Amino acid sequence: MQPHEMGVAQAAAAIREKRLTSVELVQDCLAAIVRREPDVRAWQHLDADQAMQQAVALDQTPVKGCLHGVPIGIKDIINTKDMPTEYGSSIYRGNRPVADAACVALLRRAGAVIMGKTVTTEFAFFRPGKTRNPRRLTHTPGGSSSGSAAAVADHMVPGALGSQTAGSIIRPASYCGVVGYKPSYGDFSLVGVKGLSHSLDTLGTLTRSVVDAMLLRRALLGGADEDTHEPSAHWVPSIALCRTPSWSQASFEVQAGIEKLLARLSSCGARVGEVTLPDGLNSFTELQKVLMSYEAARSLAYEFDVSPERLSNSIRELVEAGIGVCREDYLSARSASEWGGQQLEPVFERWDVLLAPSSPGPAPAGLENTGDPIFSRMWMLLGLPTLSLPAFYGSDGLPVGVQLVGMRLGDDRLFRCARWVERVLSDRVSSSSC
Amino acid sequence: MQPHEMGVAQAAAAIREKRLTSVELVQDCLAAIVRREPDVRAWQHLDADQAMQQAVALDQTPVKGCLHGVPIGIKDIINTKDMPTEYGSSIYRGNRPVADAACVALLRRAGAVIMGKTVTTEFAFFRPGKTRNPRRLTHTPGGSSSGSAAAVADHMVPGALGSQTAGSIIRPASYCGVVGYKPSYGDFSLVGVKGLSHSLDTLGTLTRSVVDAMLLRRALLGGADEDTHEPSAHWVPSIALCRTPSWSQASFEVQAGIEKLLARLSSCGARVGEVTLPDGLNSFTELQKVLMSYEAARSLAYEFDVSPERLSNSIRELVEAGIGVCREDYLSARSASEWGGQQLEPVFERWDVLLAPSSPGPAPAGLENTGDPIFSRMWMLLGLPTLSLPAFYGSDGLPVGVQLVGMRLGDDRLFRCARWVERVLSDRVSSSSC
Repeated sequence: MQPHEMGVAQAAAAIREKRLTSVELVQDCLAAIVRREPDVRAWQHLDADQAMQQAVALDQTPVKGCLHGVPIGIKDIINTKDMPTEYGSSIYRGNRPVADAACVALLRRAGAVIMGKTVTTEFAFFRPGKTRNPRRLTHTPGGSSSGSAAAVADHMVPGALGSQTAGSIIRPASYCGVVGYKPSYGDFSLVGVKGLSHSLDTLGTLTRSVVDAMLLRRALLGGADEDTHEPSAHWVPSIALCRTPSWSQASFEVQAGIEKLLARLSSCGARVGEVTLPDGLNSFTELQKVLMSYEAARSLAYEFDVSPERLSNSIRELVEAGIGVCREDYLSARSASEWGGQQLEPVFERWDVLLAPSSPGPAPAGLENTGDPIFSRMWMLLGLPTLSLPAFYGSDGLPVGVQLVGMRLGDDRLFRCARWVERVLSDRVSSSSC
Repeated sequence: MQPHEMGVAQAAAAIREKRLTSVELVQDCLAAIVRREPDVRAWQHLDADQAMQQAVALDQTPVKGCLHGVPIGIKDIINTKDMPTEYGSSIYRGNRPVADAACVALLRRAGAVIMGKTVTTEFAFFRPGKTRNPRRLTHTPGGSSSGSAAAVADHMVPGALGSQTAGSIIRPASYCGVVGYKPSYGDFSLVGVKGLSHSLDTLGTLTRSVVDAMLLRRALLGGADEDTHEPSAHWVPSIALCRTPSWSQASFEVQAGIEKLLARLSSCGARVGEVTLPDGLNSFTELQKVLMSYEAARSLAYEFDVSPERLSNSIRELVEAGIGVCREDYLSARSASEWGGQQLEPVFERWDVLLAPSSPGPAPAGLENTGDPIFSRMWMLLGLPTLSLPAFYGSDGLPVGVQLVGMRLGDDRLFRCARWVERVLSDRVSSSSC
């Protein structure tokens, strides 16, 4: 295995055990980027010397933390002191933040090499950046964490930061065939991350395995956390299929794939079933849009007033829609979030996680739009932790993810289940042990 | 009445009706600042020419919104594109943000003159800035919105922005004898405001009247709001005294003053009573500290790692305390917030607002510390809207506020009650009509 093919945990272990240096790893990742970047276009800013200098310094330093020497990509919605941060908008061309975002500082504290800035859509909304899907260059990588998902999928870096307000981690993870993790609302600090909708915005990760997401989470939590995720050998999760009110919008392939996966999880020992959400949650996808547009209209007040001509139509329409939302509707959406959480309590007393689509299908063809976040919106309104795992391939040969949804603040349990499901899925590829 | 003595609403009406120009108003405020700033030290940055240029431009422009031509002070924890923003820390000396915070953009949209930056404590925590209490220069103005409260109290500007994580609006409002308004958690956008604890941080206002706070709120909500706060002539509020678990920490004067006020509100027609909070809320003051330190330790990761020598002891201790908080305790504090909100639902079905102390007493002597936020912490954990009204004077002749606490997202009802109580309080001064 080449260094650039290693995951976060593998690479960190190899460096810790002196089987690999950070310089070797970063060099190999940079070589992969040189080969592939002209096609994939995952990076908004990348300075090879800057990355190498960090690696050299870390190779001369005692191990700082769980990411020592490992290069991580940073979505360009996140401030970095030593690299430009442009938020996907020409308004911020060449912007040099005065400080690192808290999450970047925490990655550095854990020993990470900040590799560069990955492409984001404009203000993490819908206008695409330049990135292509590394699985098929004519298809969208999804958005808004486009560059992070593509770079990780293409083995340019083992992990990257993303952020999600509607479906900006889960959808690109599904389209690019990587693991996307969106924690419980409020778990990671957003200081220094450009905000769009404060009741929804959530920082998360793109990696190629669940354990890698767990490592990034440990760093982002700032080190107070113990690792208690390792399930005992005989533990099995309870998993309920949740078709969600949007099920009919998933392709037949996705529907069939998820049902087949559920049967497989059952045959491997999981307790499985199906839940129908309370009727009151049917409107949550729409309520998420109301909440998001209302808050985005305020968050982007500066850009909208000062540089409207440099905003895309999609941002202008978002702001105008948000100004048109009446306050009662906004408050209803916020209250619904709390009410919905209470409604789901009995569901999560019975089930460890819900199994749901990550996206309506594989990455759509074309680069003009980034696909539909429809299968994430309701979980965002509820603030639940979710994780997308690469699960199967569509008939077009492109990957599709499935989404595991955990209870609020139940990220540890979600990880335990996700590792179990990941093992089943990898068995499916390599053998058929169950 | 001199222009600089006018409130936000008065000044805006006078300008709208062409009885006053923005230039005249700003000039008169600047003259007040010239007279008093050497003593009060409310301003971190003030450029008279810059303020006057805005006033000149607004006088030549059709009325933009509800604050047209009115100068507003901005706490220096809030980004301004055309003025330095230093967050009360030498780490950020001379910092020039690339954009206005969303709240500043919304004030400009409503026609405000951005007068200058008011002194904040370091990162809106405890280390005092240079500001003195304008009511008595040897006493603290309170913190962290020190300069905003002092400037408004001293008639340098009719209104200012503040922010609160523990008690940073309510306490200085109480000490300086002005109206402090801290809205429901999540109501105003914090984009471009330096974050300390994302589950608690809240933007708010300092003014000299309730109606002025309402006007600033209208601007900060971005204009979708209708004014429906005006109570009918015969409407009376229901108000319950809530001694809170910290009652014994209030001075005898404050205790007696609040009891006397309750009797007076009753004699003026309010339905009054007393509530004892559910036992489970006794720990909320402590839980707020747990939550705040845990999150601050992550939010300040950059400053703590890169420039520890430029942090005060109080910030370093906060970060270290936060790193020492175990994750379970943090999650308990967050869950408690939601649980507490449910516990209070029946209370707010019965009562419009709670009446509680704003501070343990008047401003303490000395400038080395900014007083104790003890009477705000639990409401912050609960995310409830609160408002401090100047209510009486201590035996030392310094003002003391009382706090009205509304139901979550019930800011309109809180304002209705606050206006009613304000009328009663002003009657007490001028006559004794009830």
